[in-house]
Amino acid sequence: MGQQPITFIRQVLALVTYPKLLSDPQFPEDAKERAKTILAGCRGGSVGSYTDSPGIEVIRKHVAQYIAERDGIPADWQNVVIGAGASDAIKNVLKLLICDINGKRPGVMIPIPQYPLYSATLAEFNIQQVGYYLNESTNWGLDISELKRAIEEARKTCYPRAIVVINPGNPTGQVLSRENIEAIIKFAHKEKLFIFADEVYQHNIYAPGSKFFSFKKVLVEMGEPYSKMELASFMSCSKGYMGECGLRGGYAEVLNMEPQVKAMYLKAISAMLCPTVLGQACLDIIMNPPRKGEPSYELFQKEKNGVLESLKLRAKMVADTFNSMEGFSCNEVQGAMYAFPQIKLPSKAIEAAKKAGKAPDVFYAFELLENTGICIVPGSGFGQVPGTYHFRTTILPQPDKLKAMLDNFARFHKQFLSKYS
Amino acid sequence: MGQQPITFIRQVLALVTYPKLLSDPQFPEDAKERAKTILAGCRGGSVGSYTDSPGIEVIRKHVAQYIAERDGIPADWQNVVIGAGASDAIKNVLKLLICDINGKRPGVMIPIPQYPLYSATLAEFNIQQVGYYLNESTNWGLDISELKRAIEEARKTCYPRAIVVINPGNPTGQVLSRENIEAIIKFAHKEKLFIFADEVYQHNIYAPGSKFFSFKKVLVEMGEPYSKMELASFMSCSKGYMGECGLRGGYAEVLNMEPQVKAMYLKAISAMLCPTVLGQACLDIIMNPPRKGEPSYELFQKEKNGVLESLKLRAKMVADTFNSMEGFSCNEVQGAMYAFPQIKLPSKAIEAAKKAGKAPDVFYAFELLENTGICIVPGSGFGQVPGTYHFRTTILPQPDKLKAMLDNFARFHKQFLSKYS
Repeated sequence: MGQQPITFIRQVLALVTYPKLLSDPQFPEDAKERAKTILAGCRGGSVGSYTDSPGIEVIRKHVAQYIAERDGIPADWQNVVIGAGASDAIKNVLKLLICDINGKRPGVMIPIPQYPLYSATLAEFNIQQVGYYLNESTNWGLDISELKRAIEEARKTCYPRAIVVINPGNPTGQVLSRENIEAIIKFAHKEKLFIFADEVYQHNIYAPGSKFFSFKKVLVEMGEPYSKMELASFMSCSKGYMGECGLRGGYAEVLNMEPQVKAMYLKAISAMLCPTVLGQACLDIIMNPPRKGEPSYELFQKEKNGVLESLKLRAKMVADTFNSMEGFSCNEVQGAMYAFPQIKLPSKAIEAAKKAGKAPDVFYAFELLENTGICIVPGSGFGQVPGTYHFRTTILPQPDKLKAMLDNFARFHKQFLSKYS
Repeated sequence: MGQQPITFIRQVLALVTYPKLLSDPQFPEDAKERAKTILAGCRGGSVGSYTDSPGIEVIRKHVAQYIAERDGIPADWQNVVIGAGASDAIKNVLKLLICDINGKRPGVMIPIPQYPLYSATLAEFNIQQVGYYLNESTNWGLDISELKRAIEEARKTCYPRAIVVINPGNPTGQVLSRENIEAIIKFAHKEKLFIFADEVYQHNIYAPGSKFFSFKKVLVEMGEPYSKMELASFMSCSKGYMGECGLRGGYAEVLNMEPQVKAMYLKAISAMLCPTVLGQACLDIIMNPPRKGEPSYELFQKEKNGVLESLKLRAKMVADTFNSMEGFSCNEVQGAMYAFPQIKLPSKAIEAAKKAGKAPDVFYAFELLENTGICIVPGSGFGQVPGTYHFRTTILPQPDKLKAMLDNFARFHKQFLSKYS
């Protein structure tokens, strides 16, 4: 979408890939030092070697250091398990729940709307999806009463074992308050649920009143019994300011896991040998970025802040534009990379959709695509309260393209309304 | 293990990672051209973007071209699905078999000894492992009578749906003859089995009389009805002369798959977004190496042949050394990277193992490790005919280290025999 890669990340990756460049003066010293540290962690000093299945030790240590600095709470590197992206890390932990209990299938609570990795993976693992609705009227917050409704309903047919929370939200863009996180943790404790904290957008916070709190920080600071709960938190190289989706780097930090379960977890991932070493290296650089006083610090900060500042402007631009359009309402994009506006469709449009054999939001999305070339993802792909219609759009196009896209979108919408009103 | 990376591979990877190097005169023109082709296949011209889930189109086309040149038979790039290593590609196809039939679990035939990815994955997927023994006395060939015995036995408890053949063999190092492959294909046809051809060692052929035939080539050349059978063939960047295990690149070529099944296959992998782009790039280079007349051709050939020639010498050195040791017998290492010698253990050693609570081959391996620092993998990890003992060792250490290791091993073995005879 036009976002430029962070120079330092690509310099270090080029150096570890082709170490002959370590003597090339065009590369800064701090990039070389990072590359040497990564190579020293690789068997035979090569990124072409297999690593330990949970990842290279020094990189796991850098992850732990990053988490400790983020939360102000110590982190144990042996709780860090690197994956080929957060998706891989998430699947590897979800897999541990594939086990009937008292003759019942396991169940996992996931938000609706949700990121489709979860519905797809639960289907693959034959784990029951237990959806809980996010509350659109409290900016996609979690209502404990809704969590209770969902789990009680689910207990009739499955054994709920875990809850997934995506914060900042995908596709919803909310950033949970500390109070909301505390209430979720208390709920999970009461219901004996393993918490999956999908925190891959932790760098993407835009709204003035919003702040990222990791589930780990809140849980540990709540003290016992909560601080003894099982939790896995996930992070990725794909989001944030770095946007290195294609390199596939991510991690799970796993807290308070039963030692025998953890042993099986590590054994299970070992069948797949190791996550891509260059994805691990990319993760390393994000966990251990240039520090003040190092030669790459200024440029790195400039590029990082440039991306995040621009995303912040775009987050506001997208929500404001949709809120100015008839029939649309869009929550503030507090974080992540998406808006998930609601759209009131005229009854004639709903009828036309039925005739076309499409869900109304899918019908709208196809009309938009065919008339403008703009691609949105209909809310039915993520889940939504029945009878409501939404779609997900990203804030990723560069500002001028985004502006042109939104203008185009608004024009289309007017025509659509006049056609179906 | 001291094997040096192939220069051209690393040059192209550095170029795609840090495209500023494209104007650097130290990189050869053919490396730059390869890098530009890969980048043109990436969204936004960056390896940091997600690709299509089955991989970048131009790389899939290069794979198809490689297969066509290898076999002398056209290959359709749309049958090529790239994965993060062959392991990933294999799991994604095996996953399609998770389905009870007529109230019976599915079953998959795998060789014994086998590569543990298969036993681990079948256990994870709750698919029954149907082991068939390789025939040590015919250099680990496949006996059709043994395949029949295994499948008839298995039909009592499961529904066999596929057969895995590893050629060249891991851990056994055999290269199957064309006649043997034809017989296996006929067996699979009769029993309606999907064939998994694990052909990741296709470049590693050493024995003078041995030649690699892909299952696809044989199956297509056999004509109908065999040429219409379902087959998946797997290849990797981790083996051969390239040895880029850590980069995680591989592919599946899938033949004659039912279109609806193929659609679900492509849908299922899409939940995981895409395989690492740098792993895909590495695969691309191997599929489309420097051609005669290009500036990197000579060096590439020299490095490639250097690795393969040295492996060939080491394959002979390892088998010859074991065959010269009392109580050992070792088949010729025709291909791949391993020897899987049989060892006759004295009854006193077997008793000592029992006392120590270890399988006899595990006991031997630990004694060896503790006395010499040499690490071998006991045959019980791969499976073996009950009452026989084997271990797997690689031919990967560089010649001087391998020689020292084998001398050390022989010394230990003498002592072991005198202790337990």
